Amino acid sequence: MPDIDPASKSMEAIVALCKRRGFVYPASEIYGGINGFWDYGPLGTALKNNIRDHWWKQTVECPPIGPDGEPVSIVGLDSSIIQNPKVWEASGHVGGFNDPMVDDTETKKRYRADHVWVRRAAGTDGKDVLVAIVLGSREEADAAWSHFDKTEKLPDQLRSELSKALKKFIDGAKFYEDMPLSYLDVSDEERVIVFGQHASKPGTLTEPREFNLMFETFVGAIRDASSKAYLRPETAQGIFLNYKNVVDTMRVKMPFGIAQVGKSFRNEVTPRNFIFRSREFEQMEMEWFCAPDDSPKWYDFWKHERMRWWESLGVSNSNLRFRDHDDDELAHYSKMCVDIEYKYPFTAPGFGELEGVAHRGCYDLTQHQTHSKQKLEYFDQERQVQGQKDGLSKDEINAQSKYIPNVIEPASGLTRGVLVLLTEAYTPDESRPSKVYMKFKPKFAPIKAGIFPLVNKDGMPQVAQKLYMGLREKFACQLDAKQSIGKRYARMDEAGTPYCFTIDGDTLADQTVTVRDRDSQAQERINIDQVEKFLAEKIGE
Amino acid sequence: MPDIDPASKSMEAIVALCKRRGFVYPASEIYGGINGFWDYGPLGTALKNNIRDHWWKQTVECPPIGPDGEPVSIVGLDSSIIQNPKVWEASGHVGGFNDPMVDDTETKKRYRADHVWVRRAAGTDGKDVLVAIVLGSREEADAAWSHFDKTEKLPDQLRSELSKALKKFIDGAKFYEDMPLSYLDVSDEERVIVFGQHASKPGTLTEPREFNLMFETFVGAIRDASSKAYLRPETAQGIFLNYKNVVDTMRVKMPFGIAQVGKSFRNEVTPRNFIFRSREFEQMEMEWFCAPDDSPKWYDFWKHERMRWWESLGVSNSNLRFRDHDDDELAHYSKMCVDIEYKYPFTAPGFGELEGVAHRGCYDLTQHQTHSKQKLEYFDQERQVQGQKDGLSKDEINAQSKYIPNVIEPASGLTRGVLVLLTEAYTPDESRPSKVYMKFKPKFAPIKAGIFPLVNKDGMPQVAQKLYMGLREKFACQLDAKQSIGKRYARMDEAGTPYCFTIDGDTLADQTVTVRDRDSQAQERINIDQVEKFLAEKIGE
Repeated sequence: MPDIDPASKSMEAIVALCKRRGFVYPASEIYGGINGFWDYGPLGTALKNNIRDHWWKQTVECPPIGPDGEPVSIVGLDSSIIQNPKVWEASGHVGGFNDPMVDDTETKKRYRADHVWVRRAAGTDGKDVLVAIVLGSREEADAAWSHFDKTEKLPDQLRSELSKALKKFIDGAKFYEDMPLSYLDVSDEERVIVFGQHASKPGTLTEPREFNLMFETFVGAIRDASSKAYLRPETAQGIFLNYKNVVDTMRVKMPFGIAQVGKSFRNEVTPRNFIFRSREFEQMEMEWFCAPDDSPKWYDFWKHERMRWWESLGVSNSNLRFRDHDDDELAHYSKMCVDIEYKYPFTAPGFGELEGVAHRGCYDLTQHQTHSKQKLEYFDQERQVQGQKDGLSKDEINAQSKYIPNVIEPASGLTRGVLVLLTEAYTPDESRPSKVYMKFKPKFAPIKAGIFPLVNKDGMPQVAQKLYMGLREKFACQLDAKQSIGKRYARMDEAGTPYCFTIDGDTLADQTVTVRDRDSQAQERINIDQVEKFLAEKIGE
Repeated sequence: MPDIDPASKSMEAIVALCKRRGFVYPASEIYGGINGFWDYGPLGTALKNNIRDHWWKQTVECPPIGPDGEPVSIVGLDSSIIQNPKVWEASGHVGGFNDPMVDDTETKKRYRADHVWVRRAAGTDGKDVLVAIVLGSREEADAAWSHFDKTEKLPDQLRSELSKALKKFIDGAKFYEDMPLSYLDVSDEERVIVFGQHASKPGTLTEPREFNLMFETFVGAIRDASSKAYLRPETAQGIFLNYKNVVDTMRVKMPFGIAQVGKSFRNEVTPRNFIFRSREFEQMEMEWFCAPDDSPKWYDFWKHERMRWWESLGVSNSNLRFRDHDDDELAHYSKMCVDIEYKYPFTAPGFGELEGVAHRGCYDLTQHQTHSKQKLEYFDQERQVQGQKDGLSKDEINAQSKYIPNVIEPASGLTRGVLVLLTEAYTPDESRPSKVYMKFKPKFAPIKAGIFPLVNKDGMPQVAQKLYMGLREKFACQLDAKQSIGKRYARMDEAGTPYCFTIDGDTLADQTVTVRDRDSQAQERINIDQVEKFLAEKIGE
């Protein structure tokens, strides 16, 4: 079966399946939820753990083979979510980790300024007005307005969110041909004629103001500036904080990496797109430390290695792409940065971020060295020895063997990885009772095998139980004896279980079971003793 | 070798080894740390992951065999750390999750009131004074004062923390024979004669006041009462929140469990004892839902099952014990509660909590049903069918088949489990170069095998590398070619690596390697082709 373009998949249908089959539930759902937070149900937790464990194994335990033919060296870490607040001053997050926000003084609503798009129209009183709508990206804004231009009606969803006054205004307004402008680019003079999406008249939106994305809390009994702390917005800084400890205690030498998986928190103003942009999320980050002059080589290595890794999860390479950051997009300290992007249903035909591979130079360690007053310079003995062999002067040797390492950072979202595998796997199929099946690569499927006694008698349940008990140590499997075989297959199709084994009348006679393949729906008979070997072969890679 | 009593082990030495070998580092150490937070280094992360994965496997993937001879049914979950704040009102944490605190109005210090211990002395002016010292437990206070009674000197560590005024007072004071009294039991009248540990005169300590242990934060752009949220102080409530979703989507039936591993946060006033009481910690909790009349049976089952589990990690049963909670210790809703306690070096000869197994009745689900107005009652079809078979009346059948489940909760600290395995493993041995080795059960050792080429020539590194590459997919192993074999053994002893394989001159001739056993230090030669089988057998259980 050819891969299906994610553009043709419906997010609503994916979210509904996630709820229905126990992949992802809205957090605090019985209390009406909490915007930007999600809970992972039994199948979602298994899927997430499978991705996490695979990343950990391929990063820390069996890291890839480097350019010299030997495996690279990476150690694991698990640092605190709450750290000394000075960390976030040094990293620049206290000063700079901000989104520009705009308030509506009439409705008290607040938006991310870069999500507000304005378009110029001739007002009924003869004066121009800038009509503002709130949408996530320029693409969405373009699409909404071009839809309007063609049909003279805004998309229903957006239209229902407009204030009454604005609806009336739009119906009578003549829009100029210019395409939407970001609210960030509206001049101070023109701000007074902006007609906000929920407002009853123009001029109610404030100028953009900075809003820090870190969640704050207080540590200890007393609440004041001295006890203020932050929930980490990225796992990376926990790695930089421990760089010195790792160098001092783990006998690593350049180049090497430190890897970490864990939760991070960003107080997003507009969390959106299911688990793509949530306020609590999980990251898999690795900081690769190397000599400055080796850094371009390693940037290139990790860029391609990480793409290969995502493909190894069964993600179609036609749905993945590199996007190099433009110079004006780069952080001031970053030399190069590339995103690995996926074609999400809500970005298609465009792509959205899945992982970033950044060349961070020596920025972070230098910042921490300055703020903590701890020496974070590395002394590279191998370079010293090489320098002596090469007959270099003492100054020359020092210059090449003492340095603050450069850092290449492959940073990916574990929870985004879950979303990508859910989207890739989602495969509508009208011919099946379930109308859809989840085509996970077997290695990542939450349940590897369903084990079914055809009927609940004639010794079949006992045989099934025995098979289940023999397999469960090695493979996540599920014993299911309820309802018809067709219904059981349908449930396993929605769960993405690649193989189902049925114990039937023949099993008792000839020790064979049927094995049903999720994707082809083909069935074959194999000996019950061969089931473990069959699964090991199919699931191994 | 007989097990060593934890009482004879030094926490300082364990903490130092943890730092030196990369098990546990103080969080934000380059910034002077942050009280109550710890980072897990490469070996500590591996150890913690090994415990986590074993718990998950034995709880979710291969749950234990129940009293009826069949495996019990448990599903996994991973819920958000931040939930709708109404959750914590329903659970009682907003109103009741408090420690009584006492302030010193002179020094501005704040203590947990139950950590302040007073003893009566005759003041120099002829009037009685209550001398207060701050120590974690009654046992510690008893020990300090009895030490004083015997030697007329307080222990040095405590003495150095006394104010000058109090030091002078104690040197001249006559103490009555009564043993220390908790500050919580000091009457309002006598509070004015309490001489605080850091104060210059009596009467500076306030009455105890409640202090909530939940970390607070604000979600969204606006900070006010409506956006206040909490970091979860336990993973359990995330399970109760999803009880309905799991019942509705996962086809579970009573009895069944939901299990979760994850971080929790408590703003402890006095974090102490290394990772025993930290402000950020990790839990492994399972909520077992069952019919109310079955609950005593399941309480008993989980109590013994959990003790068996800790023993299966290699924890000596002489260092573990059950402690049933007294009636006055039980939460008002709890019917029974037992702690599984470990003899920590800082509690020895006493014991401290490792896991609690609580009978929570129907308290949590009832609270959430009331606060969320969602029906959380369970309809037990099997009981209905049984009731019909038994010829019961409709009312009788309803009474036994519709209920809010009772909950048995085995709740353990993953990070406490790390501390217990570190303590158990820590084995002083003056005869070794390292003076100490970590006697982890092989299954839980961060590194399973060290692989050493005897010298860095004659093809030995290539053979070692080939062995390493063949093993690393299956076992966490480390290739080490640096320094003498003795030093390499010493490092692996401190890391707790159970087996080291050395490739030497004979290997090239006869394809054998030496394997050195961590505990006995005995060496034997085995064929290099047998190494994988050797490890699989030794590490399997």
